[in-house]
Amino acid sequence: MHINKRVGEQTVMLMHEPRIIATTSIVGPKEGQGPLKDYFDVILQDDTNGKDSYEKAESSIMYDAIIQTIQKANLKEDEINYLFAGDLLNQLSSSSFAAREINIPFVGLYGACSTMAESLSIASLIMDGGFADYVIASTSSHFSSAERQFRFPLEFGSQRSLTSQWTVTGAGAMLLGKEGNFPRVTYVTTGMVRDYGIKDANNMGAAMAPAAVDTLYKHFKDTGRDPDYYDIIATGDLGKVGRELTQKLLLEYGYDISKVYIDCGERIFNNEEQNTCSGGSGCGCSAVVSCGYIYKNMLKGKFKRVFLVSTGALMSTTSSLQGESIPGIAHGVAIEF
Amino acid sequence: MHINKRVGEQTVMLMHEPRIIATTSIVGPKEGQGPLKDYFDVILQDDTNGKDSYEKAESSIMYDAIIQTIQKANLKEDEINYLFAGDLLNQLSSSSFAAREINIPFVGLYGACSTMAESLSIASLIMDGGFADYVIASTSSHFSSAERQFRFPLEFGSQRSLTSQWTVTGAGAMLLGKEGNFPRVTYVTTGMVRDYGIKDANNMGAAMAPAAVDTLYKHFKDTGRDPDYYDIIATGDLGKVGRELTQKLLLEYGYDISKVYIDCGERIFNNEEQNTCSGGSGCGCSAVVSCGYIYKNMLKGKFKRVFLVSTGALMSTTSSLQGESIPGIAHGVAIEF
Repeated sequence: MHINKRVGEQTVMLMHEPRIIATTSIVGPKEGQGPLKDYFDVILQDDTNGKDSYEKAESSIMYDAIIQTIQKANLKEDEINYLFAGDLLNQLSSSSFAAREINIPFVGLYGACSTMAESLSIASLIMDGGFADYVIASTSSHFSSAERQFRFPLEFGSQRSLTSQWTVTGAGAMLLGKEGNFPRVTYVTTGMVRDYGIKDANNMGAAMAPAAVDTLYKHFKDTGRDPDYYDIIATGDLGKVGRELTQKLLLEYGYDISKVYIDCGERIFNNEEQNTCSGGSGCGCSAVVSCGYIYKNMLKGKFKRVFLVSTGALMSTTSSLQGESIPGIAHGVAIEF
Repeated sequence: MHINKRVGEQTVMLMHEPRIIATTSIVGPKEGQGPLKDYFDVILQDDTNGKDSYEKAESSIMYDAIIQTIQKANLKEDEINYLFAGDLLNQLSSSSFAAREINIPFVGLYGACSTMAESLSIASLIMDGGFADYVIASTSSHFSSAERQFRFPLEFGSQRSLTSQWTVTGAGAMLLGKEGNFPRVTYVTTGMVRDYGIKDANNMGAAMAPAAVDTLYKHFKDTGRDPDYYDIIATGDLGKVGRELTQKLLLEYGYDISKVYIDCGERIFNNEEQNTCSGGSGCGCSAVVSCGYIYKNMLKGKFKRVFLVSTGALMSTTSSLQGESIPGIAHGVAIEF
């Protein structure tokens, strides 16, 4: 009864290729001193964004990213059919409270730091299925709200391990439409949960690498594409440790991605100078890198074919306290222009 | 470029009407003593399900519900294209750890107690868009994991207010397919966040009622249907307090739903005898009532037209401590047979 749009095991080909017609990236002061600073739309001078808590600050930058994206496209809230959003905070409070201020039907998603690709995946499928004219995909994270929820109070001043990552303060939003000369979403590869038994919450790159490898491998297999088809393959936030592992493990599956591969977490900071150890992390990491650096370079013609693979570590503080290892997931979206 | 399937502002008509070909409902001992006990597939004798924590117990019953649903349809894991699941626990740990044991591409969703209708909505759209042959929508909650995460340690023995609700221990899973003589999903109405300023986390029925009213009103307006079109309209878990408010508020919009209206939370327990105050709540509440009582009565021909409106309260403990009110959301799915 349907046109079959499935390609291989985990991939869907988008027949109508939804367009990413506008994006916004907002980052904190530290991210604004990093190597990608010229690509962000807004660099906050104050990481509280004038709010009285870090959680409210995070929610407010997601709100700002969404509203500015709608404005860039000269649209109004009531023309957007769905908002797909998520974040790292318990009960998605950043997204839920941002959505409270916006009159758009809201679907909350959780994929930890994979949320940019997860929300973009679902947004793209909903567009491609003909259910919407315009949709928003958005996510955020904040160093200080994440640190105190997942790790230690900031005041404690805990020492950071070399494999640890620095949660990005940032929010990204993408607006999808049906038409126009914009980057197009062509394939969506949805990941399975992978857990190789890593229990160290200060080494999330290693915990997430098997999921990234799995989704990359499935994408190549499902589509028949080689890594070199892409101008850039960007994983979410594996950091230096996870990026190296992913590259090595994929070689064992016969794919050499080294020529086109970057990790958003490794690139967003000057890790040595900025003391960010293995790199950036958080939902906001691949969000601002894809909404900023990647999207803007696509518009300039520098990148024509991009595969974005945001990666998430699905543990909670409770699961870690109960001795569980860290399940990882990675979702992939091919964007072409 | 697309067939326009949108109906009014927030509703989509499903051209291919995905079928709900199997469901499973698993509940705890207390739910198994309630008035709907004959409709549940599994009633646990031990609410830990043999696990060493309530969180692991919750995850295990979601896993069991998913696996049993796949088995009922004589399918295998690798024939299911997507698992859409979510729960109340921080970072969706119940769903993430269930998904770890299952080789199905996984999309985590968070809508608090609205998650059954949220996951069924996205599952239905993905099916209708032609992206999948089979998908699963699932959710769970557990009294003891929710109580200690959101409220007090169980050992504290806190007194319950009369407007409070009792989190259901239960998991539900629905399997959607393309064909066959099964209940069909016909319309999906996706809710917006509504917050009328209620701050009392022991009165979630009142906090969620405005969202339920909004989604019900939009559904009637978008589809042109009257409440009496349906044999049953079931809200998620508003309890007695929220059910009465919803009924009254909708009258002000010109819709009298009283003849066909039940609330899953109010019906799952004998609230006076079982000391559950205003009724049941939790993602598992509308999940087991819809997978059990509603679905089985549809198969028997007792209900032909059902509108399921699961409702969620989107606060976190942090947002409540920071003085925020409780945002609500409600998602609606029309099921007909």
